[in-house]
Amino acid sequence: MDLRERALNFHKLHKGKIALHCKVPVETREQMTLAYTPGVAEPCLEINKCYDKIYDYTAKSNWIAIVTNGTAVLGLGDIGAPAGLPVMEGKAVLFKAFGGVDAFPLCLETKDSKEIVNTVKLLQCSFGGINLEDIKAPECFEIETELKKVCSIPIFHDDQHGTAVVSLAAIFNSLKLIKKNLKDIKVVINGAGAAGIAIAKLLIKLEVKDVILCDTIGAIYDGRQEKMNKHKIEMSKISNKFVEKGTLREIIKDKDVFIGVSVGNCVDSDMIKSMNKDSIIMAMANPIPEISPDLAKKAGARIVCTGRSDYPNQVNNVLAFPGIFRGALDVRASDINDDMKIAAAKAIAGIITSEELDEDYVIPVPFDLRIAPKVAEYVARAAILTKVNRIHITPEEVRENTEKLLKKI
Amino acid sequence: MDLRERALNFHKLHKGKIALHCKVPVETREQMTLAYTPGVAEPCLEINKCYDKIYDYTAKSNWIAIVTNGTAVLGLGDIGAPAGLPVMEGKAVLFKAFGGVDAFPLCLETKDSKEIVNTVKLLQCSFGGINLEDIKAPECFEIETELKKVCSIPIFHDDQHGTAVVSLAAIFNSLKLIKKNLKDIKVVINGAGAAGIAIAKLLIKLEVKDVILCDTIGAIYDGRQEKMNKHKIEMSKISNKFVEKGTLREIIKDKDVFIGVSVGNCVDSDMIKSMNKDSIIMAMANPIPEISPDLAKKAGARIVCTGRSDYPNQVNNVLAFPGIFRGALDVRASDINDDMKIAAAKAIAGIITSEELDEDYVIPVPFDLRIAPKVAEYVARAAILTKVNRIHITPEEVRENTEKLLKKI
Repeated sequence: MDLRERALNFHKLHKGKIALHCKVPVETREQMTLAYTPGVAEPCLEINKCYDKIYDYTAKSNWIAIVTNGTAVLGLGDIGAPAGLPVMEGKAVLFKAFGGVDAFPLCLETKDSKEIVNTVKLLQCSFGGINLEDIKAPECFEIETELKKVCSIPIFHDDQHGTAVVSLAAIFNSLKLIKKNLKDIKVVINGAGAAGIAIAKLLIKLEVKDVILCDTIGAIYDGRQEKMNKHKIEMSKISNKFVEKGTLREIIKDKDVFIGVSVGNCVDSDMIKSMNKDSIIMAMANPIPEISPDLAKKAGARIVCTGRSDYPNQVNNVLAFPGIFRGALDVRASDINDDMKIAAAKAIAGIITSEELDEDYVIPVPFDLRIAPKVAEYVARAAILTKVNRIHITPEEVRENTEKLLKKI
Repeated sequence: MDLRERALNFHKLHKGKIALHCKVPVETREQMTLAYTPGVAEPCLEINKCYDKIYDYTAKSNWIAIVTNGTAVLGLGDIGAPAGLPVMEGKAVLFKAFGGVDAFPLCLETKDSKEIVNTVKLLQCSFGGINLEDIKAPECFEIETELKKVCSIPIFHDDQHGTAVVSLAAIFNSLKLIKKNLKDIKVVINGAGAAGIAIAKLLIKLEVKDVILCDTIGAIYDGRQEKMNKHKIEMSKISNKFVEKGTLREIIKDKDVFIGVSVGNCVDSDMIKSMNKDSIIMAMANPIPEISPDLAKKAGARIVCTGRSDYPNQVNNVLAFPGIFRGALDVRASDINDDMKIAAAKAIAGIITSEELDEDYVIPVPFDLRIAPKVAEYVARAAILTKVNRIHITPEEVRENTEKLLKKI
C-alpha cells in the first residue's frame, strides 16, 4: 500500500486522532457530587473571588489551543480551516506524546486577522497557552502581536519560532564543530516569511555579525522600494547592516551560513562554492530542499541540515514546541519570550555531547525522550529569569515533572 | 471534611478534570509519518476536495463544544466565564462517562450575544455539535436561534432542552400512573426563563390542553403589558389559551401539573390543595424546591419530582444530554429538533417498566447505563424520520454502538 492509502486508512480507522480523557471517575454519587453539582460550586466560587485559582481547580494549566485558519498548511498552502484539522489533530498528538501537554485544535474559518484575534481573546480562559499554527504571513505576525497584547497567556506561532529555535540549535552545535564564534558569522536567510523573519530576529538578538534576508527578488535592505511590506521594512532596519544589495546568488558569496526557508532547488553548487570555508547549509524547503545535501557537501559545505527525516540533521519542530510549552505551562508563564526561545535552542543543542557531536549529528532525533524535559527546564529557567513566571517552581522540578509525565504516557 | 473542603481538594488534587487522549500512537517513524507529515497531507487534501470527508478523517464526528459565558452558572448566577470552567469540565466528564461523547469546554468572556454567535460560527468546524450551557435568559434564546441559522451542526442549549426533556419524561410516566391523557391536562409552569419556556414549547407541541407560564407577577397572557420581553410575548400568543390572569396562587387552582423552575418555597399547602385530584408536582428549584416533597404529598399531591438527588424522582439533565448528543452525532444530524427531544423523553420514560413504575419512581436514576443507548437510539430514529441525518445508520446500530462505547469506558 502506498503512503496515500496507508495515511487515509489510518485516519479513517481511528476516526481522527484525539479524544477526551477524564481524569476523575463519576461512578458513584459521591464522585458525581464532587465533580459536578453541588460540590463543583465551591471551586467556581473560589475562582470568582480570585481569578488565579483557575489554575488550581481546572485543567487550564495543562491545556493549550492549536489555532489555525488553514491558510498555510504544511506544504499544501491555503487549503482552508476544515482541511487543516487532520494536521492540527496530529500536532495535538505530538504535544501530548512529547510534552505531556493537552492540546485542542481550533480551526477558524476566517481570513480576517481581527476576527481571529477577537475569537482567541474571548476563549483564552479555557487555556494555559495558544499555539498558532499554519497561518500565512504576513497575517501571522499581526495576529501574534495583537494576541500578545490582549491575552494573559503565552502566544507562540510555531511556524515562526519552533523553526527558529531548532535552526538555532543546529547552528549552535555546528559552530562548536567548525570552531567559529556566533558573533563573527555572516548569515543569509532565503525566504522572508514567517520562519525566515523569526530566525533573523533571534540571530540579531544574539548579536550575530550580519544577517541578510532575501526574498524572490534578492536582499532586503534599508531603502529598498520593490515588493516590501511593513514586516520586511521593519527587518530592513535591523538586518543587513552593511546594506548589501543583489540577488541570492550575489549575496550568498562569502557568507558562513545559508538558511533556506524557501523553495526547492534554488541554490546550486557554484553558490555553495562561493561561500566561506566550513559553510553551514540549512536547506529546509520541503519536500525538496533548496539544494540536496549530497550536492551541497560535494560543493564544499561542511554541515547540511534539511527538513527531511531521510537525511541526517532533520530540523523538526517537534524538538522544540512540546518542551517549550511544557516549561511555559509549568511556571504559568505569561509569555514565551526570546530568552525562553534561545534557552530552548541551547537545551536542544546540549542533548548532543561533545563526544557525540558530528557533522551528521548536530540536531538530536525526535524520538529522544530526554529532549522535552531538558527544553522545559531551560525554558522555565529563562521564564523565571525574565520574570514572566507566575508561580515559584524550580527549573529542576519542571524537568523532573516532565520526565514523570513522559514515562506515564 | 465538609463538602466544600472535599470538593476543593478533589479539584486541586486532579488539577482539573479533563485531559487529552491520543487515539493513535506516535512511537515509530512510520506512525509519525501517518499521523503527521507527510502522510497527514492526504486526509487534508481529501477534505479540501469534499468537506464531508472531515467526518471520516478527523475526530470532529465525536467532539462537541460546551459553550458558556458564565452568566447563569448552576444556582450561582452570573459568576463569569472563568469561574464557570469547573462546571463545564464536569459537564464534559458526564458527556464522556454517560454518552461516550468527547466534549471540550469553551468559556467565552463576553456578554455580547453577537460575539458569542460569531465565535462559535468561526470555530464550528472542529466540532460535531454545540452544547450551550449556563447562558442566562433571554440571551440564550437569541444565541441558540442565531447559531441554528449559521451552523451546519446541531445546537442544543441544555438548560432549556435537557430540563424540558427530562421533565417531559417524568410527565409521561406520571400520567401512566394516574391515568390521565396528556392532551387533557392543564399545566402551570412557574418561571418564564430558559427551562420554563422550553418545557412550555414541548408541551404545546404535544397538544397539551392548556399550558400557562407564570413569572414573578403572575400569569403571562396575550395582551399583558408589564414586565414582558419578546420571548414572553411570543409565549403569550401560543400558551394560556383561555387567557387566565392572576398570580400563581390563583392560576394553580384546578391545574393537573405544577412545574417549578423558579425559587424555593414559593408554593404552599393551600396552593397544592387547590389543584385537581392526583396532581403532579415538579418542584425543580435548587437547592430548595418550590415546595418540599413531604409538604406537597401531605397536601394531596400524588407525584412529586425535584432537582435533588436526596429525594425520589430527581429531574437530572444527565439522563438526557449524553444520549441526545450520542444519537445526533452518530447520524451526523444537522439539528436537534423537537421530534428528537420528544423521542428522548419517551426513551427515558420507557426505561421504567409498567411493573416498576411507582409514584416514587417515575424517573430513572442517572447511573442506569441503559439510558444513553436507548435515548441515542430514539433520537437517531427521530432524526432519520425528520430527515436531519446526514448518513445512513440504523437506530439499532446507534444503540449497539453506544452500549459498546459505555462498556469500554
